[in-house]
Amino acid sequence: MIGRLAPPWDGLLLDARLATLRDDLGAYGAIEDGVLAWKEGLIAWAGPRAELPGEPEALARRVESAQRRWITPGLVDCHTHLVFAGDRALEFERRLQGASYEQIAREGGGILSTVRATRAADEAGLLSASLARARALLADGVTTVEIKSGYGLDLDSERAMLRVARRIGEELGIGVRATCLAAHALPPEYAGRADDYIAAVCEWLPELHAEGLVDAVDAFCEGIGFSPAQVRRLFEVARGLGLPVKLHADQLSDLGGAALVAEFGGLSADHIEYADEQAVRAMAAAGTVAVLLPGAFHVLRETQLPPITALREHAVPMAVASDLNPGTSPLLSLRLAMSLACTHFRLTPEEALRGATVNAARALGLHDRGRLLPGQRADFVQWDIAHPAELAYWLGGGLAHAVHVAGVAHHHG
Amino acid sequence: MIGRLAPPWDGLLLDARLATLRDDLGAYGAIEDGVLAWKEGLIAWAGPRAELPGEPEALARRVESAQRRWITPGLVDCHTHLVFAGDRALEFERRLQGASYEQIAREGGGILSTVRATRAADEAGLLSASLARARALLADGVTTVEIKSGYGLDLDSERAMLRVARRIGEELGIGVRATCLAAHALPPEYAGRADDYIAAVCEWLPELHAEGLVDAVDAFCEGIGFSPAQVRRLFEVARGLGLPVKLHADQLSDLGGAALVAEFGGLSADHIEYADEQAVRAMAAAGTVAVLLPGAFHVLRETQLPPITALREHAVPMAVASDLNPGTSPLLSLRLAMSLACTHFRLTPEEALRGATVNAARALGLHDRGRLLPGQRADFVQWDIAHPAELAYWLGGGLAHAVHVAGVAHHHG
Ligand SMILES: [Zn+2]
Ligand SMILES: [Zn+2]
Repeated sequence: MIGRLAPPWDGLLLDARLATLRDDLGAYGAIEDGVLAWKEGLIAWAGPRAELPGEPEALARRVESAQRRWITPGLVDCHTHLVFAGDRALEFERRLQGASYEQIAREGGGILSTVRATRAADEAGLLSASLARARALLADGVTTVEIKSGYGLDLDSERAMLRVARRIGEELGIGVRATCLAAHALPPEYAGRADDYIAAVCEWLPELHAEGLVDAVDAFCEGIGFSPAQVRRLFEVARGLGLPVKLHADQLSDLGGAALVAEFGGLSADHIEYADEQAVRAMAAAGTVAVLLPGAFHVLRETQLPPITALREHAVPMAVASDLNPGTSPLLSLRLAMSLACTHFRLTPEEALRGATVNAARALGLHDRGRLLPGQRADFVQWDIAHPAELAYWLGGGLAHAVHVAGVAHHHG
Repeated sequence: MIGRLAPPWDGLLLDARLATLRDDLGAYGAIEDGVLAWKEGLIAWAGPRAELPGEPEALARRVESAQRRWITPGLVDCHTHLVFAGDRALEFERRLQGASYEQIAREGGGILSTVRATRAADEAGLLSASLARARALLADGVTTVEIKSGYGLDLDSERAMLRVARRIGEELGIGVRATCLAAHALPPEYAGRADDYIAAVCEWLPELHAEGLVDAVDAFCEGIGFSPAQVRRLFEVARGLGLPVKLHADQLSDLGGAALVAEFGGLSADHIEYADEQAVRAMAAAGTVAVLLPGAFHVLRETQLPPITALREHAVPMAVASDLNPGTSPLLSLRLAMSLACTHFRLTPEEALRGATVNAARALGLHDRGRLLPGQRADFVQWDIAHPAELAYWLGGGLAHAVHVAGVAHHHG
């Protein structure tokens, strides 16, 4: 045991059922009659009551009963676009009224409408709209969230988005990883000049990074996004800055995006419905996580499934994320993404939970969270459920009894 | 105006955006600068601020601002099986681990596992488990809920379920309609004797009705349920008792269930994926509502769509319900069913909202709720949204700022 986590501990929960997600135990790394203790924001002890080295009251300043609730690691949402301004519900409505994508674009809809609204918003307005969405995720168990830029598409607006992402972490006390996704779409002022836009993004990146606003670099590699050659130029700049990369890859067609991000030793390849087995092998070799985004698959009513069997065979870690965004995945709950991953992609509930905790943390390059182990961050959730499979089984509902970040309860259901 | 609703009113909300669902106004029956007032549990006034007949403070004892929030009628969930004991999450997990339906049945799963658990539960346990689910619906805007029996399958257990349904209404103060669905499945003690079981149900019905426990009669008409001839026998008993009927009809095959329930002037035909146009015509003629249940369609990954175009053409009112049940639709949110109805069935958000309010009320034979009109029950929800389409657009999230039942705020988001 690490010396600084020696007793007395700050807090201790008795009568807990722990889904530790340890690999050396059975399903879910479950411990039925468990105890969880923490100190200075880190887990100090997690194991069976019978092995606790003393009386609870002698070990911790504060002892409570979890009343047989299940406790999981705090959920990690490793792919979101939750900072934005404006409203796309009307576009959703227009589409269901029969409007074509062309009509909606003529009416000013689509991603560029979010870009216009985000550019026009001030930072305070952007923050308050985005905070409400982050709070919804937190209420459903999320203690770490990745947030992408990508609706600014000019230096100042991208900076504003990344600053708001940082502010959300400060306001809510949750973990935030900020990803620069300036290569999300081509802004109107660069129409027909995608290479010039990528050159501009390559110049913004060092500046944003120097301001401490960038934890990783992402791009949208697709026929309607940027080409593999353009992504490669951006990734080379990221590599030069020591920034990890990830990629929106092979969602609507196979452009070799998953293989490309693996070639750069990237953190994750995201979506990957069209990735082939060779790409999966490259991801396995590079340690690149597969981030599955069933929300967009569901909303767009796609039919091409990601290569789940190949991912399992090659032991590529699978993460599951909300992809929270106004156009294709208006999901305010990571548990809903877990449910959709089971229903649409046939993940097991345990794969979905690992995908929303330990594997999602890994997709963010974070190894200090995602499991209930001594030394990990004391981010955990007490759930009102009788079995961990219920987390992916129920659609909706407020199942989180309490969400703890670094040992402190941040939300009570 | 009805005399007893004359001022002074009990409460009044200014600065409200009202989705009245009145047919004589535009989309959603919207009133942008609206006022809503209530008295003795009923809506006393709902209209534009400019037409308010006096100063708010002179009209009502209590005046508040809705702060430009949208207000809709309280949602009505017109098809649920939310009273049950036991747990089917493990079965969900086993299925995703590759177990066949036969294996799961051998392991003791399936609907009969819920029947065993429900029979074994005492009323207090059944109530507390079920209350949590009803509270989840309420938190997301539901102020009236239909609850079916059908996991008891013997007289005492069916009675216990119906009593628990009534108790939920008393405990939460929401509207509850209790439906006898004893003809849900064949209990093991009647194996091979479905006609005898129906005969038994026909004897229970007058008794349960005499105890004031039955508002309507339902059955599961399907190859794996009961035949049209058996349903007909049951419906004739219901008719003799003056009880309205409804039916789980044409979900997995076309047995003519929708036409059958229309022939009895039934309240609703539910599921109806396989109903043909002739059945739709019969429903239109009989005033039978089509209750769409996209949750089961989603979870079972069905592909046969209900006849939405024919329902629209023949002006059959469409309702949308959660179908909350442990086997095929573990939905703890009616808004999620609205979203699934849009995504899977291509309903517009307005159709989904009408389907979860005025048309759902009609599917329960209730004409006193479902719209914001003077004289209707003062059941309404204040939503933190900028447009009513958002109710079906967002998946998850706690959008309800306050849920009012008969004028009283029952839940604050
Ligand atoms: Zn994305
Ligand atoms: Zn049903």
